[in-house]
Amino acid sequence: MASVTKRGPYAKTAARQREILDAAGEVFATHGYRAGSLKEIADRVGIDSSTILHHFANKSVLLQKVLEDRDTRSLGDAAPDAAAGAADIPAAFLRLARANERIPGIVVLYTLLAAESATPEHPSNEYFFLRYARVRAEFTAAFREMADAGLLRPGVEPEFAALSTLALWDGLQVQWMHDSDAIDIVGTLRGQLELLTTVELDEEETG
Amino acid sequence: MASVTKRGPYAKTAARQREILDAAGEVFATHGYRAGSLKEIADRVGIDSSTILHHFANKSVLLQKVLEDRDTRSLGDAAPDAAAGAADIPAAFLRLARANERIPGIVVLYTLLAAESATPEHPSNEYFFLRYARVRAEFTAAFREMADAGLLRPGVEPEFAALSTLALWDGLQVQWMHDSDAIDIVGTLRGQLELLTTVELDEEETG
Repeated sequence: MASVTKRGPYAKTAARQREILDAAGEVFATHGYRAGSLKEIADRVGIDSSTILHHFANKSVLLQKVLEDRDTRSLGDAAPDAAAGAADIPAAFLRLARANERIPGIVVLYTLLAAESATPEHPSNEYFFLRYARVRAEFTAAFREMADAGLLRPGVEPEFAALSTLALWDGLQVQWMHDSDAIDIVGTLRGQLELLTTVELDEEETG
Repeated sequence: MASVTKRGPYAKTAARQREILDAAGEVFATHGYRAGSLKEIADRVGIDSSTILHHFANKSVLLQKVLEDRDTRSLGDAAPDAAAGAADIPAAFLRLARANERIPGIVVLYTLLAAESATPEHPSNEYFFLRYARVRAEFTAAFREMADAGLLRPGVEPEFAALSTLALWDGLQVQWMHDSDAIDIVGTLRGQLELLTTVELDEEETG
């Protein structure tokens, strides 16, 4: 807290923006972007809507900042272990799935906005179009590395492995949002990765 | 048109309700339930919002009727062929996926509402909770029939086959909404069914 005092208005601005981004993430995750109102976000922080517009030009800019902020914060320690190489890739996917269990609000935000943003006029339409293309390419590169190491099952193509893993994950999240007791995201992804690859996935080790 | 004239006000009421349900389906598929307004639905039909409320008690009743109406109309000729038995089940899934390609508006409506309705206060929250539980049970029964006929690959459990097929399908629809050129729903489902079962799926025959 000492640094907040020392840095004065700049630190206060950053702290206020942090509060607004957190509240906006919660409101958009609950109601979506279209029905989530600046008034509800402002109420949560205990400020006026006009104060939000002092920090963020409009509601669509605010949504964009929430998504960029979450992207930065959700990239973590789940990346494949370079030393372990291709054989570690399935376990790395499962580590990421387990890490997501600790941030359910972010998962809900993405799942809701991914569906809501599919119409061209939505402010995050391009963001999700590009995000899906990028993640498909990243997953495909990972499974291609596994194919080169002879770790995919016969007949499994890297593109199919990538798309099916990503789409299965998204679909599981929707059902999990409705019935978290019935849906085991990590366990189901493990089953899929066992179908796609020849790597043995220890349940103890991979959640 | 003769019967409309003959049956008088009852047929007129049915025709007006049909127009309202169709317009509401389009508006909810574009904006979701929360942001989709009665005013926009009324404008599409060319009536006042108050006329909608004459036919449907409120917006959440209207949504429920749209979903029930779509459920009735989307059940079609895609059911497994009883004579063909368990071996026809994968092809029946692919026929259903191809039938969905002809009703993209309904697919978009369900995909958006499935995500949006995951909060308890949404009027379709219970509908989607029950719908997912029912479809998982139906898919599990179908794959159990295949297991009994020795048509699942070694190690594949009916519950996993059901959940992975349903969740993959949902996830593919989200990506397809963003980039219909990049995502082949039928082809990817065929790949998944070839991983899960030993039934050969002819590309010509199954789309």
